[in-house]
Amino acid sequence: MLGALLQPELKEMIVNGRWDELRGAVSALDPADLAEIVIDLPPDSGAAVFRVLPRRIATHVFSQLPVQHQEELIHSVSSEHMREILTHMTPDDRTQLFGELPAEMTRRLLEALPANELKTARELLGYSSEAAGRYMTPRYVALRPEMTAAEALERVRRVGRGQETLHTLYIVDGDGRLVEDVRLGSLVLAEPTVPVGELHDRPLVAVQAHTPREQLVQEFQKYDRFSLPVIDDDGQMLGIITTDDVLDVATEEATEDMHKMGATGALEEPYLHVGFSAMIRKRAGWLSVLFLGEMLTASVMSSFEDQIARAVVLAMFIPLIISSGGNSGSQTATLIVRSLALGELRTRDWIRVFLREFSTGTALGAWLGVIGFLRVVVWQWLHLFDYGPHYLLIGAVVCISLMGVVMFGTLAGSMLPMALQRLRLDPATSSTPFVATLVDVTGVVVYFGAATLLLRGTLL
Amino acid sequence: MLGALLQPELKEMIVNGRWDELRGAVSALDPADLAEIVIDLPPDSGAAVFRVLPRRIATHVFSQLPVQHQEELIHSVSSEHMREILTHMTPDDRTQLFGELPAEMTRRLLEALPANELKTARELLGYSSEAAGRYMTPRYVALRPEMTAAEALERVRRVGRGQETLHTLYIVDGDGRLVEDVRLGSLVLAEPTVPVGELHDRPLVAVQAHTPREQLVQEFQKYDRFSLPVIDDDGQMLGIITTDDVLDVATEEATEDMHKMGATGALEEPYLHVGFSAMIRKRAGWLSVLFLGEMLTASVMSSFEDQIARAVVLAMFIPLIISSGGNSGSQTATLIVRSLALGELRTRDWIRVFLREFSTGTALGAWLGVIGFLRVVVWQWLHLFDYGPHYLLIGAVVCISLMGVVMFGTLAGSMLPMALQRLRLDPATSSTPFVATLVDVTGVVVYFGAATLLLRGTLL
Repeated sequence: MLGALLQPELKEMIVNGRWDELRGAVSALDPADLAEIVIDLPPDSGAAVFRVLPRRIATHVFSQLPVQHQEELIHSVSSEHMREILTHMTPDDRTQLFGELPAEMTRRLLEALPANELKTARELLGYSSEAAGRYMTPRYVALRPEMTAAEALERVRRVGRGQETLHTLYIVDGDGRLVEDVRLGSLVLAEPTVPVGELHDRPLVAVQAHTPREQLVQEFQKYDRFSLPVIDDDGQMLGIITTDDVLDVATEEATEDMHKMGATGALEEPYLHVGFSAMIRKRAGWLSVLFLGEMLTASVMSSFEDQIARAVVLAMFIPLIISSGGNSGSQTATLIVRSLALGELRTRDWIRVFLREFSTGTALGAWLGVIGFLRVVVWQWLHLFDYGPHYLLIGAVVCISLMGVVMFGTLAGSMLPMALQRLRLDPATSSTPFVATLVDVTGVVVYFGAATLLLRGTLL
Repeated sequence: MLGALLQPELKEMIVNGRWDELRGAVSALDPADLAEIVIDLPPDSGAAVFRVLPRRIATHVFSQLPVQHQEELIHSVSSEHMREILTHMTPDDRTQLFGELPAEMTRRLLEALPANELKTARELLGYSSEAAGRYMTPRYVALRPEMTAAEALERVRRVGRGQETLHTLYIVDGDGRLVEDVRLGSLVLAEPTVPVGELHDRPLVAVQAHTPREQLVQEFQKYDRFSLPVIDDDGQMLGIITTDDVLDVATEEATEDMHKMGATGALEEPYLHVGFSAMIRKRAGWLSVLFLGEMLTASVMSSFEDQIARAVVLAMFIPLIISSGGNSGSQTATLIVRSLALGELRTRDWIRVFLREFSTGTALGAWLGVIGFLRVVVWQWLHLFDYGPHYLLIGAVVCISLMGVVMFGTLAGSMLPMALQRLRLDPATSSTPFVATLVDVTGVVVYFGAATLLLRGTLL
């Protein structure tokens, strides 16, 4: 809020090199607002701002920048300054940065870290980028079960500075196993002499380090916590994950799924920041695959060349029929893929989904089929087009084909994502254009099949 | 975690009516886990469980249930018991419930609330369901700027029970204006004699009550806070919003956008909970609209009947060409709609987007055009199909048409969402099937236009 108001003034200070004024002004601003200003600046001025910012603020602002800006700054800020920033970054933010930088650069930056931070960074980078462990920070306050509330508060005062959050404190036994957690608020409200192990703030919820990040989002949604502890198979406390990182993961996962559903490689950067050639690469791949698939329609249709030649009128309904199948397939795939991502559907539900989509497809197909039949008949009656003496038969072919392709579309759109999930592939790969292409090829076969059957002896 | 393990045992206790054991067991469970068990039970047993749960736990479990289960319980639990649960629900959870229940039911339940809760509930329901105010709770701890840290902690001890969160405390001046906020952790770490107004924990960030909920998600993502205060135009403190509700909003918004992009009405309940007729209604609407739109292709093609009759070979490439346009349009629409939702793109960027998509569309169209041309030529050379003596011309028609439709697809897929956003409509309405249908109709015109132009005097 304040950031947006002050932006023009701050930019003026920067452009004119009024650093003392700038240093005075920035303390009232949230690092996220400062980061937005840095993003808008030309790279040189951005680096200059970083040199004058107090170290603590510089670290926070750096953490808030998108990775391509971080990369630029790593090149343009002195390595001594960079080492300081990296050392003071929170371990989880640092893991995200290292995970996205080129490997060679990460290696060089890791070397600059002091021994203890290096150990932490190596451990966190050891988790898969899709696992909960990757979003963890080991900076939390641990308590012993036998401490009293007053002793626990004393411990928070002693070791609380520089932790990721003091909202929740973790009660860990002598073997490092997580026993319980307690909110700082409950500690403040508690009788000073009660042992923290007896506070029973709320039931303990923890996640495993190898929990997939999609499920991590579901756990946070279910339990409404600000942070969750991370444990290993043994119940040993490894670190904590905070909800702000989970909100980012939820948004990224949704973006990834949407991009996939639209048959484009997931863009890792905002649309306007993606270069031209990267944009082409992300899009040409799937577009080419779909094109090759769609070429089958031309091959299939060439085998129906005679039918088309004898009844040209058949050609007119091709787009209508195949698109209706594609549309119903797109609808279904969208619903199923999202439900799978939200954990509302599991692969073992496939038979229920099949039965639902079978009946839904029948109903929708019948509905569109009737409209399609009426389209032919009404146009004939109103003399808008002459389909010849067999117009009722043509109407019937259109109607039956629509029923068939819509049914096939809903079944393909529902079963394909379920099958991909079963094979542990990403269901979102069954993108709406992919389903549509699959249904197009089938649609042509269904349509000309129905025509051959119904029009034999009359038009064909 | 624990919930999943205990589920079979708990269900047995419930089915056999071993209520004392159940009461003993539930205190170790998170309400979210208990809610999952209640969802799985037949309605009668669910209501029985509610009667035996301690009031505090019953309230929490009730808050965690999906709205259709809440509605069932309202009917089956005694109204005295229900009044207790409603009175003790947090105001934000209660607002979500009232917002989704039928109006008549909400009116009746509101009457059951005590006067002060009724006032709060009415105020919160006064905000649009798309506004930040709807997710607000007025249960927070307010401090005066002149209080010392020790006095502030004393106040937290006095009034802290029953607040939504004690993580952040809000410093409010004598006129009710929000001055600053301070984390409980910082208060614990501070010198006891320092006035809280001088703590300067971190820069203040607040949202307006009328902030749209999509932007609310963006603010939480930007500032990484666990909760944000809500103020009115005057800077008066109204309440707070916590990140757990924002995570739910982010997920709902993404689901809504995805459903719209797939051309289906947004399902408000999990896929398997939506009834058959509701499912048909959500899907038949858009499918019918798209079908009517697609009928234009039949009309357009009837005006090219002569061309098809003279050159049947033209019909074979219709699906290939229109689908390629649809696919490129779907890709583009997906990218643009998501970028708009994330706030990465604004409508004022339209000219940059237009130029980008113009060049991207040209490149992708040229690429597919070349493949299409080769498809015709290679099939001819390999004697897979005989396109006649003018096969090079046919290849050229296919190539040029592909370039045209892919270009049109990318432009329509990008400009349509931008235009909808400009008109303050939801950009996600330009669903991928909608764009595909639009491009289909245009594709037919482009294709036969190119054919008429290039094949005049030879095939046509």
